[in-house]
Amino acid sequence: MMSTTGTFITFEGGEGAGKTTAINLLAERLKELGVKVLVTREPGGIPIAERIREVILDTSHTSMDPRTEALLYAAARRQHLVEKVIPALNQGNIVLCDRFVDSSLVYQGFARGLGMDAVEEINAFAIQDTMPELTFWFDINPVIGLARITSNDGRELNRLDQESMSFHLKVREGYARLAKKHPERIVCIDAAVSTEEIVKQMIDILREKTRILDI
Amino acid sequence: MMSTTGTFITFEGGEGAGKTTAINLLAERLKELGVKVLVTREPGGIPIAERIREVILDTSHTSMDPRTEALLYAAARRQHLVEKVIPALNQGNIVLCDRFVDSSLVYQGFARGLGMDAVEEINAFAIQDTMPELTFWFDINPVIGLARITSNDGRELNRLDQESMSFHLKVREGYARLAKKHPERIVCIDAAVSTEEIVKQMIDILREKTRILDI
Repeated sequence: MMSTTGTFITFEGGEGAGKTTAINLLAERLKELGVKVLVTREPGGIPIAERIREVILDTSHTSMDPRTEALLYAAARRQHLVEKVIPALNQGNIVLCDRFVDSSLVYQGFARGLGMDAVEEINAFAIQDTMPELTFWFDINPVIGLARITSNDGRELNRLDQESMSFHLKVREGYARLAKKHPERIVCIDAAVSTEEIVKQMIDILREKTRILDI
Repeated sequence: MMSTTGTFITFEGGEGAGKTTAINLLAERLKELGVKVLVTREPGGIPIAERIREVILDTSHTSMDPRTEALLYAAARRQHLVEKVIPALNQGNIVLCDRFVDSSLVYQGFARGLGMDAVEEINAFAIQDTMPELTFWFDINPVIGLARITSNDGRELNRLDQESMSFHLKVREGYARLAKKHPERIVCIDAAVSTEEIVKQMIDILREKTRILDI
Protein backbone atom coordinates (compact mmCIF):
# COMPACT_ATOMS: atom_id res chain seq x y z
CA MET A 1 0.00 0.00 0.00
CA MET A 2 1.19 3.52 -0.79
CA SER A 3 1.11 6.51 1.50
CA THR A 4 -1.95 8.63 0.82
CA THR A 5 -3.02 12.25 1.06
CA GLY A 6 -6.34 11.54 2.81
CA THR A 7 -7.16 10.63 6.40
CA PHE A 8 -8.67 7.31 7.44
CA ILE A 9 -10.99 7.42 10.48
CA THR A 10 -12.96 4.47 11.85
CA PHE A 11 -15.90 4.13 14.22
CA GLU A 12 -16.35 1.21 16.57
CA GLY A 13 -18.68 0.05 19.31
CA GLY A 14 -21.36 -2.43 20.35
CA GLU A 15 -24.83 -2.77 18.86
CA GLY A 16 -27.11 0.27 19.16
CA ALA A 17 -24.36 2.70 20.12
CA GLY A 18 -25.68 5.20 17.56
CA LYS A 19 -22.61 5.24 15.34
CA THR A 20 -24.48 5.53 12.03
CA THR A 21 -26.47 8.65 12.99
CA ALA A 22 -23.41 10.31 14.49
CA ILE A 23 -21.20 9.52 11.49
CA ASN A 24 -23.73 11.02 9.07
CA LEU A 25 -24.07 14.19 11.14
CA LEU A 26 -20.28 14.47 11.50
CA ALA A 27 -19.90 14.11 7.73
CA GLU A 28 -22.40 16.95 7.17
CA ARG A 29 -20.52 19.24 9.56
CA LEU A 30 -17.17 18.42 7.98
CA LYS A 31 -18.55 19.15 4.51
CA GLU A 32 -19.86 22.51 5.78
CA LEU A 33 -16.30 23.22 6.94
CA GLY A 34 -15.03 22.54 3.40
CA VAL A 35 -13.63 19.04 3.96
CA LYS A 36 -13.92 16.32 1.27
CA VAL A 37 -15.61 13.38 3.03
CA LEU A 38 -16.48 9.81 2.09
CA VAL A 39 -18.75 7.90 4.48
CA THR A 40 -18.61 4.13 4.14
CA ARG A 41 -18.95 0.82 5.92
CA GLU A 42 -18.08 -2.72 4.95
CA PRO A 43 -19.23 -4.08 2.47
CA GLY A 44 -19.89 -0.55 1.15
CA GLY A 45 -21.66 -1.34 -2.09
CA ILE A 46 -18.71 -3.37 -3.43
CA PRO A 47 -20.41 -6.32 -5.18
CA ILE A 48 -17.88 -8.99 -4.10
CA ALA A 49 -17.94 -7.75 -0.50
CA GLU A 50 -21.77 -7.53 -0.54
CA ARG A 51 -21.96 -11.18 -1.63
CA ILE A 52 -19.59 -12.19 1.19
CA ARG A 53 -21.64 -10.22 3.71
CA GLU A 54 -24.81 -12.01 2.60
CA VAL A 55 -23.18 -15.33 3.43
CA ILE A 56 -22.13 -14.06 6.89
CA LEU A 57 -25.47 -12.55 7.88
CA ASP A 58 -27.76 -15.29 6.55
CA THR A 59 -29.65 -16.39 9.67
CA SER A 60 -29.95 -19.94 8.27
CA HIS A 61 -26.18 -20.28 8.73
CA THR A 62 -26.32 -20.94 12.46
CA SER A 63 -23.69 -23.67 12.04
CA MET A 64 -21.03 -21.29 10.74
CA ASP A 65 -17.71 -21.94 12.43
CA PRO A 66 -16.22 -18.84 14.15
CA ARG A 67 -12.98 -19.16 12.15
CA THR A 68 -14.93 -19.30 8.87
CA GLU A 69 -16.74 -16.13 9.93
CA ALA A 70 -13.51 -14.33 10.83
CA LEU A 71 -11.96 -15.24 7.45
CA LEU A 72 -15.07 -14.02 5.61
CA TYR A 73 -15.00 -10.68 7.42
CA ALA A 74 -11.32 -10.32 6.51
CA ALA A 75 -12.09 -11.13 2.85
CA ALA A 76 -14.92 -8.58 2.62
CA ARG A 77 -12.70 -6.02 4.38
CA ARG A 78 -9.90 -6.53 1.88
CA GLN A 79 -12.12 -6.00 -1.14
CA HIS A 80 -13.84 -2.92 0.33
CA LEU A 81 -10.47 -1.45 1.27
CA VAL A 82 -8.92 -1.98 -2.17
CA GLU A 83 -11.92 -0.91 -4.24
CA LYS A 84 -13.27 1.98 -2.17
CA VAL A 85 -11.24 3.18 0.84
CA ILE A 86 -7.76 3.38 -0.67
CA PRO A 87 -8.88 5.11 -3.91
CA ALA A 88 -10.80 7.69 -1.81
CA LEU A 89 -7.77 8.28 0.42
CA ASN A 90 -5.60 8.68 -2.67
CA GLN A 91 -8.00 11.38 -3.88
CA GLY A 92 -7.47 13.29 -0.62
CA ASN A 93 -10.74 12.39 1.09
CA ILE A 94 -11.38 12.04 4.79
CA VAL A 95 -12.78 8.51 4.89
CA LEU A 96 -15.20 7.84 7.75
CA CYS A 97 -15.62 4.06 8.00
CA ASP A 98 -18.24 2.43 10.23
CA ARG A 99 -16.36 -0.57 11.73
CA PHE A 100 -12.97 -1.97 10.65
CA VAL A 101 -10.32 -4.37 11.99
CA ASP A 102 -11.08 -3.61 15.66
CA SER A 103 -14.57 -5.10 15.21
CA SER A 104 -13.04 -8.43 14.19
CA LEU A 105 -10.51 -8.37 17.03
CA VAL A 106 -13.29 -7.71 19.54
CA TYR A 107 -16.14 -9.83 18.14
CA GLN A 108 -14.27 -12.85 16.79
CA GLY A 109 -10.95 -12.57 18.62
CA PHE A 110 -12.14 -11.67 22.10
CA ALA A 111 -15.89 -12.33 22.48
CA ARG A 112 -15.89 -15.61 20.51
CA GLY A 113 -12.55 -16.61 22.01
CA LEU A 114 -10.44 -17.13 18.86
CA GLY A 115 -7.74 -14.92 20.35
CA MET A 116 -7.08 -11.30 19.39
CA ASP A 117 -3.56 -12.12 18.11
CA ALA A 118 -4.72 -14.87 15.73
CA VAL A 119 -7.49 -12.66 14.31
CA GLU A 120 -5.03 -9.76 14.01
CA GLU A 121 -2.77 -11.98 11.85
CA ILE A 122 -5.41 -12.78 9.23
CA ASN A 123 -6.46 -9.13 9.22
CA ALA A 124 -2.87 -8.02 8.73
CA PHE A 125 -2.88 -10.22 5.61
CA ALA A 126 -6.10 -8.47 4.51
CA ILE A 127 -5.19 -4.83 5.14
CA GLN A 128 -1.38 -4.90 4.92
CA ASP A 129 -0.43 -1.57 6.49
CA THR A 130 -3.59 0.48 5.98
CA MET A 131 -4.66 1.26 9.55
CA PRO A 132 -6.86 4.22 10.57
CA GLU A 133 -5.16 7.33 11.91
CA LEU A 134 -7.95 7.74 14.48
CA THR A 135 -10.72 5.49 15.83
CA PHE A 136 -13.78 6.65 17.76
CA TRP A 137 -15.04 3.96 20.12
CA PHE A 138 -18.73 4.56 20.91
CA ASP A 139 -19.04 3.12 24.38
CA ILE A 140 -22.49 2.23 25.71
CA ASN A 141 -23.99 -0.15 28.23
CA PRO A 142 -25.27 -3.07 26.08
CA VAL A 143 -28.61 -3.06 27.91
CA ILE A 144 -29.21 0.48 26.61
CA GLY A 145 -27.74 -0.31 23.17
CA LEU A 146 -29.92 -3.34 22.52
CA ALA A 147 -33.05 -1.58 23.83
CA ARG A 148 -32.39 1.20 21.30
CA ILE A 149 -32.27 -1.30 18.42
CA THR A 150 -35.50 -3.10 19.25
CA SER A 151 -37.61 -0.06 20.21
CA ASN A 152 -36.40 2.75 17.95
CA ASP A 153 -35.16 1.30 14.69
CA GLY A 154 -38.10 -0.85 13.78
CA ARG A 155 -35.66 -3.13 11.96
CA GLU A 156 -35.50 -6.85 12.56
CA LEU A 157 -32.75 -8.27 14.71
CA ASN A 158 -30.04 -10.00 12.67
CA ARG A 159 -27.92 -12.92 13.77
CA LEU A 160 -25.42 -10.73 15.63
CA ASP A 161 -28.13 -8.86 17.56
CA GLN A 162 -29.56 -12.16 18.73
CA GLU A 163 -26.43 -13.11 20.66
CA SER A 164 -26.75 -13.34 24.41
CA MET A 165 -26.15 -10.41 26.75
CA SER A 166 -22.96 -11.99 28.08
CA PHE A 167 -21.58 -11.84 24.54
CA HIS A 168 -22.34 -8.12 24.28
CA LEU A 169 -20.71 -7.51 27.66
CA LYS A 170 -17.58 -9.28 26.39
CA VAL A 171 -17.66 -7.05 23.30
CA ARG A 172 -17.58 -4.00 25.56
CA GLU A 173 -14.69 -5.45 27.57
CA GLY A 174 -12.80 -6.23 24.34
CA TYR A 175 -13.08 -2.64 23.15
CA ALA A 176 -11.90 -1.42 26.56
CA ARG A 177 -8.80 -3.61 26.27
CA LEU A 178 -8.04 -2.37 22.75
CA ALA A 179 -8.49 1.27 23.80
CA LYS A 180 -6.05 0.71 26.65
CA LYS A 181 -3.56 -0.92 24.27
CA HIS A 182 -3.77 1.81 21.58
CA PRO A 183 -4.40 5.09 23.47
CA GLU A 184 -2.76 7.13 20.70
CA ARG A 185 -5.30 5.89 18.12
CA ILE A 186 -8.52 4.93 19.93
CA VAL A 187 -10.64 7.65 21.58
CA CYS A 188 -13.54 6.60 23.83
CA ILE A 189 -16.81 8.47 23.28
CA ASP A 190 -19.65 8.26 25.83
CA ALA A 191 -22.46 7.16 23.50
CA ALA A 192 -25.18 7.71 26.10
CA VAL A 193 -25.23 11.48 25.45
CA SER A 194 -27.02 13.19 22.52
CA THR A 195 -25.80 12.86 18.94
CA GLU A 196 -25.26 16.65 18.84
CA GLU A 197 -22.99 16.45 21.85
CA ILE A 198 -21.10 13.44 20.42
CA VAL A 199 -20.46 15.23 17.12
CA LYS A 200 -19.27 18.34 18.95
CA GLN A 201 -16.80 16.22 20.93
CA MET A 202 -15.57 14.46 17.78
CA ILE A 203 -14.94 17.75 15.99
CA ASP A 204 -12.92 18.99 18.99
CA ILE A 205 -10.87 15.79 18.90
CA LEU A 206 -10.32 16.05 15.13
CA ARG A 207 -9.01 19.62 15.61
CA GLU A 208 -6.68 18.45 18.32
CA LYS A 209 -5.44 15.14 16.87
CA THR A 210 -5.50 15.52 13.07
CA ARG A 211 -4.78 18.12 10.42
CA ILE A 212 -8.21 17.79 8.82
CA LEU A 213 -9.48 21.13 10.14
CA ASP A 214 -6.23 23.12 9.80
CA ILE A 215 -7.69 25.14 6.96
CA MET B 1 -8.39 -30.31 16.81
CA MET B 2 -8.25 -33.77 18.32
CA SER B 3 -6.21 -36.72 17.12
CA THR B 4 -8.32 -39.00 14.96
CA THR B 5 -8.52 -42.64 14.00
CA GLY B 6 -8.81 -42.05 10.25
CA THR B 7 -6.22 -41.10 7.65
CA PHE B 8 -6.29 -37.84 5.73
CA ILE B 9 -4.92 -37.96 2.15
CA THR B 10 -4.94 -35.08 -0.31
CA PHE B 11 -4.49 -34.82 -4.08
CA GLU B 12 -2.87 -31.84 -5.77
CA GLY B 13 -1.83 -30.70 -9.22
CA GLY B 14 -2.48 -28.33 -12.10
CA GLU B 15 -5.59 -28.19 -14.28
CA GLY B 16 -6.39 -31.32 -16.31
CA ALA B 17 -4.00 -33.61 -14.43
CA GLY B 18 -6.76 -36.22 -14.13
CA LYS B 19 -7.04 -36.16 -10.34
CA THR B 20 -10.81 -36.64 -10.17
CA THR B 21 -10.90 -39.81 -12.30
CA ALA B 22 -7.94 -41.31 -10.45
CA ILE B 23 -9.37 -40.50 -7.00
CA ASN B 24 -12.67 -42.17 -7.84
CA LEU B 25 -10.95 -45.31 -9.13
CA LEU B 26 -8.62 -45.41 -6.10
CA ALA B 27 -11.66 -45.14 -3.80
CA GLU B 28 -13.30 -48.11 -5.56
CA ARG B 29 -10.18 -50.24 -5.18
CA LEU B 30 -9.79 -49.30 -1.50
CA LYS B 31 -13.43 -50.19 -0.83
CA GLU B 32 -12.88 -53.55 -2.54
CA LEU B 33 -9.97 -54.04 -0.11
CA GLY B 34 -12.35 -53.40 2.81
CA VAL B 35 -11.29 -49.86 3.63
CA LYS B 36 -13.86 -47.22 4.75
CA VAL B 37 -13.41 -44.32 2.32
CA LEU B 38 -14.84 -40.82 1.98
CA VAL B 39 -14.10 -38.96 -1.26
CA THR B 40 -14.50 -35.19 -1.04
CA ARG B 41 -13.31 -31.88 -2.38
CA GLU B 42 -13.85 -28.32 -1.21
CA PRO B 43 -16.62 -27.09 -0.91
CA GLY B 44 -17.92 -30.67 -0.67
CA GLY B 45 -21.65 -30.04 -0.49
CA ILE B 46 -21.32 -27.93 2.66
CA PRO B 47 -23.85 -25.10 2.07
CA ILE B 48 -21.74 -22.29 3.57
CA ALA B 49 -18.65 -23.44 1.65
CA GLU B 50 -20.68 -23.84 -1.56
CA ARG B 51 -21.88 -20.23 -1.26
CA ILE B 52 -18.30 -19.04 -0.75
CA ARG B 53 -17.15 -21.05 -3.78
CA GLU B 54 -19.85 -19.44 -5.93
CA VAL B 55 -18.43 -16.02 -5.07
CA ILE B 56 -14.88 -17.14 -5.97
CA LEU B 57 -15.72 -18.77 -9.29
CA ASP B 58 -18.19 -16.18 -10.61
CA THR B 59 -16.59 -15.10 -13.90
CA SER B 60 -18.11 -11.60 -13.50
CA HIS B 61 -15.75 -11.07 -10.56
CA THR B 62 -12.69 -10.31 -12.63
CA SER B 63 -11.81 -7.48 -10.23
CA MET B 64 -11.39 -9.79 -7.25
CA ASP B 65 -8.23 -8.93 -5.35
CA PRO B 66 -5.83 -11.90 -4.91
CA ARG B 67 -5.85 -11.49 -1.11
CA THR B 68 -9.65 -11.52 -1.05
CA GLU B 69 -9.57 -14.75 -3.05
CA ALA B 70 -7.01 -16.37 -0.72
CA LEU B 71 -9.11 -15.48 2.35
CA LEU B 72 -12.25 -16.89 0.71
CA TYR B 73 -10.52 -20.19 -0.10
CA ALA B 74 -9.33 -20.38 3.51
CA ALA B 75 -12.88 -19.71 4.77
CA ALA B 76 -14.45 -22.41 2.55
CA ARG B 77 -11.66 -24.81 3.57
CA ARG B 78 -12.33 -24.23 7.25
CA GLN B 79 -16.04 -24.95 6.98
CA HIS B 80 -15.55 -28.06 4.81
CA LEU B 81 -12.91 -29.35 7.24
CA VAL B 82 -15.04 -28.83 10.35
CA GLU B 83 -18.32 -30.10 8.92
CA LYS B 84 -17.13 -32.97 6.76
CA VAL B 85 -13.46 -34.01 6.92
CA ILE B 86 -12.90 -34.08 10.68
CA PRO B 87 -16.16 -35.94 11.48
CA ALA B 88 -15.26 -38.55 8.81
CA LEU B 89 -11.73 -38.95 10.22
CA ASN B 90 -13.20 -39.33 13.71
CA GLN B 91 -15.34 -42.16 12.36
CA GLY B 92 -12.22 -43.96 11.14
CA ASN B 93 -12.54 -43.17 7.44
CA ILE B 94 -9.75 -42.76 4.94
CA VAL B 95 -10.57 -39.28 3.62
CA LEU B 96 -9.45 -38.65 0.02
CA CYS B 97 -9.64 -34.89 -0.55
CA ASP B 98 -9.21 -33.33 -4.00
CA ARG B 99 -7.06 -30.20 -3.26
CA PHE B 100 -6.27 -28.69 0.13
CA VAL B 101 -3.86 -26.13 1.63
CA ASP B 102 -1.10 -26.81 -0.92
CA SER B 103 -3.39 -25.51 -3.70
CA SER B 104 -3.62 -22.15 -1.95
CA LEU B 105 0.12 -22.00 -1.28
CA VAL B 106 0.84 -22.72 -4.95
CA TYR B 107 -1.96 -20.77 -6.70
CA GLN B 108 -2.28 -17.71 -4.46
CA GLY B 109 1.02 -17.80 -2.61
CA PHE B 110 3.43 -18.64 -5.41
CA ALA B 111 1.75 -18.16 -8.82
CA ARG B 112 -0.07 -14.94 -7.88
CA GLY B 113 2.88 -13.72 -5.85
CA LEU B 114 1.29 -13.20 -2.42
CA GLY B 115 4.07 -15.24 -0.84
CA MET B 116 3.77 -18.86 0.33
CA ASP B 117 4.50 -17.90 3.95
CA ALA B 118 1.74 -15.28 4.14
CA VAL B 119 -0.81 -17.65 2.59
CA GLU B 120 0.36 -20.41 4.92
CA GLU B 121 -0.38 -18.17 7.93
CA ILE B 122 -4.04 -17.57 7.04
CA ASN B 123 -4.42 -21.27 6.25
CA ALA B 124 -2.89 -22.22 9.59
CA PHE B 125 -5.65 -20.12 11.16
CA ALA B 126 -8.20 -22.04 9.05
CA ILE B 127 -7.01 -25.62 9.60
CA GLN B 128 -5.20 -25.36 12.93
CA ASP B 129 -3.19 -28.60 13.00
CA THR B 130 -5.21 -30.80 10.65
CA MET B 131 -2.71 -31.55 7.88
CA PRO B 132 -2.83 -34.57 5.54
CA GLU B 133 -0.64 -37.55 6.34
CA LEU B 134 0.08 -38.03 2.64
CA THR B 135 -0.33 -35.87 -0.47
CA PHE B 136 -0.25 -37.13 -4.07
CA TRP B 137 0.96 -34.44 -6.45
CA PHE B 138 -0.28 -35.19 -10.00
CA ASP B 139 2.45 -33.66 -12.13
CA ILE B 140 1.73 -32.90 -15.78
CA ASN B 141 2.97 -30.53 -18.45
CA PRO B 142 0.34 -27.72 -18.46
CA VAL B 143 0.14 -27.81 -22.25
CA ILE B 144 -1.15 -31.40 -22.01
CA GLY B 145 -3.32 -30.66 -18.98
CA LEU B 146 -5.15 -27.73 -20.56
CA ALA B 147 -5.59 -29.60 -23.86
CA ARG B 148 -7.28 -32.43 -21.92
CA ILE B 149 -9.76 -29.99 -20.38
CA THR B 150 -10.80 -28.30 -23.61
CA SER B 151 -10.94 -31.38 -25.86
CA ASN B 152 -12.10 -34.22 -23.63
CA ASP B 153 -14.30 -32.83 -20.88
CA GLY B 154 -16.66 -30.78 -22.98
CA ARG B 155 -17.09 -28.47 -19.96
CA GLU B 156 -16.70 -24.71 -20.23
CA LEU B 157 -13.49 -23.12 -19.02
CA ASN B 158 -13.91 -21.34 -15.70
CA ARG B 159 -11.99 -18.28 -14.52
CA LEU B 160 -9.03 -20.31 -13.32
CA ASP B 161 -8.71 -22.24 -16.59
CA GLN B 162 -8.60 -18.98 -18.49
CA GLU B 163 -5.36 -17.85 -16.85
CA SER B 164 -2.35 -17.56 -19.10
CA MET B 165 0.10 -20.40 -19.75
CA SER B 166 2.83 -18.64 -17.76
CA PHE B 167 0.54 -18.82 -14.73
CA HIS B 168 0.11 -22.59 -15.16
CA LEU B 169 3.86 -23.01 -15.52
CA LYS B 170 4.33 -21.15 -12.23
CA VAL B 171 1.76 -23.47 -10.64
CA ARG B 172 3.89 -26.45 -11.68
CA GLU B 173 7.02 -24.80 -10.31
CA GLY B 174 5.22 -24.04 -7.04
CA TYR B 175 4.26 -27.68 -6.55
CA ALA B 176 7.82 -28.74 -7.31
CA ARG B 177 9.08 -26.42 -4.58
CA LEU B 178 6.58 -27.73 -2.04
CA ALA B 179 7.42 -31.34 -2.89
CA LYS B 180 11.08 -30.58 -2.33
CA LYS B 181 10.28 -28.90 1.00
CA HIS B 182 8.05 -31.74 2.28
CA PRO B 183 9.46 -34.98 0.84
CA GLU B 184 8.05 -37.01 3.76
CA ARG B 185 4.48 -35.97 2.93
CA ILE B 186 4.28 -35.11 -0.79
CA VAL B 187 4.70 -37.86 -3.40
CA CYS B 188 5.02 -36.90 -7.07
CA ILE B 189 2.93 -38.94 -9.51
CA ASP B 190 3.59 -38.78 -13.27
CA ALA B 191 0.09 -37.88 -14.46
CA ALA B 192 0.89 -38.48 -18.14
CA VAL B 193 0.47 -42.27 -17.74
CA SER B 194 -2.86 -44.13 -17.67
CA THR B 195 -5.29 -43.85 -14.76
CA GLU B 196 -4.91 -47.61 -14.15
CA GLU B 197 -1.15 -47.22 -13.81
CA ILE B 198 -1.54 -44.17 -11.53
CA VAL B 199 -3.91 -46.01 -9.21
CA LYS B 200 -1.60 -49.02 -9.07
CA GLN B 201 1.28 -46.72 -8.07
CA MET B 202 -0.82 -45.01 -5.43
CA ILE B 203 -1.84 -48.31 -3.87
CA ASP B 204 1.81 -49.37 -3.70
CA ILE B 205 2.67 -46.08 -2.00
CA LEU B 206 -0.23 -46.43 0.46
CA ARG B 207 1.04 -49.92 1.41
CA GLU B 208 4.51 -48.54 1.93
CA LYS B 209 3.79 -45.25 3.67
CA THR B 210 0.54 -45.72 5.63
CA ARG B 211 -1.21 -48.36 7.72
CA ILE B 212 -4.39 -48.24 5.63
CA LEU B 213 -3.76 -51.59 3.93
CA ASP B 214 -2.25 -53.42 6.93
CA ILE B 215 -5.35 -55.54 7.22
